[in-house]
Amino acid sequence: MNDLVEKARAGNARAVARLISLVESGSDNELREAAKLLKAPGRARVVGLTGSPGVGKSTTTAALVKALRARGDRVGVLAVDPSSPFTGGALLGDRVRMQDHALDDGVFIRSMATRGHLGGLSWAVPQALRVLDAAGFDVVLVETVGVGQAEVDVRALADTTVVLLAPGMGDGVQAAKAGILEIADVFVVNKADRDGAQSTVRDLRNMISLGGAAWRPPVVPTVAVRDEGIGDLVKALDDHARHLSETGEGRARRLARARDEITAVALRALRDRFGDPASDLRLYRLAQDVLDGLADPYTAADNVIAEL
Amino acid sequence: MNDLVEKARAGNARAVARLISLVESGSDNELREAAKLLKAPGRARVVGLTGSPGVGKSTTTAALVKALRARGDRVGVLAVDPSSPFTGGALLGDRVRMQDHALDDGVFIRSMATRGHLGGLSWAVPQALRVLDAAGFDVVLVETVGVGQAEVDVRALADTTVVLLAPGMGDGVQAAKAGILEIADVFVVNKADRDGAQSTVRDLRNMISLGGAAWRPPVVPTVAVRDEGIGDLVKALDDHARHLSETGEGRARRLARARDEITAVALRALRDRFGDPASDLRLYRLAQDVLDGLADPYTAADNVIAEL
Repeated sequence: MNDLVEKARAGNARAVARLISLVESGSDNELREAAKLLKAPGRARVVGLTGSPGVGKSTTTAALVKALRARGDRVGVLAVDPSSPFTGGALLGDRVRMQDHALDDGVFIRSMATRGHLGGLSWAVPQALRVLDAAGFDVVLVETVGVGQAEVDVRALADTTVVLLAPGMGDGVQAAKAGILEIADVFVVNKADRDGAQSTVRDLRNMISLGGAAWRPPVVPTVAVRDEGIGDLVKALDDHARHLSETGEGRARRLARARDEITAVALRALRDRFGDPASDLRLYRLAQDVLDGLADPYTAADNVIAEL
Repeated sequence: MNDLVEKARAGNARAVARLISLVESGSDNELREAAKLLKAPGRARVVGLTGSPGVGKSTTTAALVKALRARGDRVGVLAVDPSSPFTGGALLGDRVRMQDHALDDGVFIRSMATRGHLGGLSWAVPQALRVLDAAGFDVVLVETVGVGQAEVDVRALADTTVVLLAPGMGDGVQAAKAGILEIADVFVVNKADRDGAQSTVRDLRNMISLGGAAWRPPVVPTVAVRDEGIGDLVKALDDHARHLSETGEGRARRLARARDEITAVALRALRDRFGDPASDLRLYRLAQDVLDGLADPYTAADNVIAEL
């Protein structure tokens, strides 16, 4: 384990991959050992990219990787797919799109998927971020499906959240007004060469100008498939990073993130205790009582907690 | 509260609705009181209906309600929508389709939605089932979007799980072979008047015949919009209920369900404790330590648990 962590910290891609697998499979003792050895300096900037299917998240992610690499950043990508028990895992289309970077050891790409168990992805992704941080990545891009559809709340994970839209979704924008303004630090209107792009950009800017927050999310038009506007997006991300640092907002977000992570780890540890043989037998007996009308689930739960 | 529970047990729809709202909003003390007062006899059969968008879940649910009402069953419907922070709640299209039953007090229909918080729907739905059971419903239909896309695992909730398919999704069936056979107690091929329906039915039956389980899921072709095949579906549900009862499988499933519920209630109670002011301050300090590299999340979590 020492050796593995040492290699990961030196940026060895295979070691990073093995540590993330460990985080996903979640063998508890190894994990604790790894977590204690990993020094996550909190240097990596975490950028969440979210939006409905079809807006071009993966293409934009690939273009961003290229632009960030061009200036020397080491870039990690976590593609967080919704759980799919039918396929048993993530669709790896994003990997195909990323094959330009397959031989570049300054890029690490990983698809994460889970079957939706309590504490699944919402627990594994922060741990994977720690691994990538410890391994010295400058930026980690976390790509998720639309907010609320994913098990993972990207806002809670990211320093900067990018919401992607595409033209022709104008009605959706109208409907979503309230929610969308809260979520995004940066908007991208991708496929900006299509009809309606200008009005989508204009609508968004109008909506944003109504807000009075310290940070007004910029709206960046892009055509990611041709790398257009990606320089502007990188600049917007840098601007937001500066804002986070200057206002203390960045530290506040990371504190909240660390707190969530501790809570998740604690809840998982407690849940695991319910699974040990003695607790399991007790739970089984309590379940019988509930089924037979001798107890209600609350009283039974109090009983479980008292025995912890 | 006594009065409310009394009325719900007498089948008063407004009282049932208020109790379910209470369950959704989750004010803890009231909830405990209600749970203790509610005697859930475990008489209600819980039937989960799941399938991709567009296969006709809501139409089939509405047709089932009609058929079950015709023989005198009291029927509850819980429509469990995926969380949507953009809309802030469930789309109530299903209610519109259900308006035939709006004046029938033998039918209770409810859309449930949440914003995806830990323990949200996965915690509220079992409680709502208890309310409906206590209120004397004979059957409760739980309609969810495709397995794995929903926050709620319908298999873990239902006595009988119905998987709906529609013709022209043959490739999906092929791809999904492994998973789909495990999930379904009954298959419905809806829109059976369309091209390809017969081959979908045939493919499914061939797949099922390979299995060696005690229960072979029947495949029921329906055209729900015209009530065709719904009688066969009711029969298939009854057959499965008999199988559950005769083999003891029903009791085993309900035991597992009760156990999950107790665990969920216990975890929720523990999580709530993290939110009290003293714990909150402690978590905040631990989060600072994690951020400053003085502790890892595991050690911090151990600390939290020790203080509980």
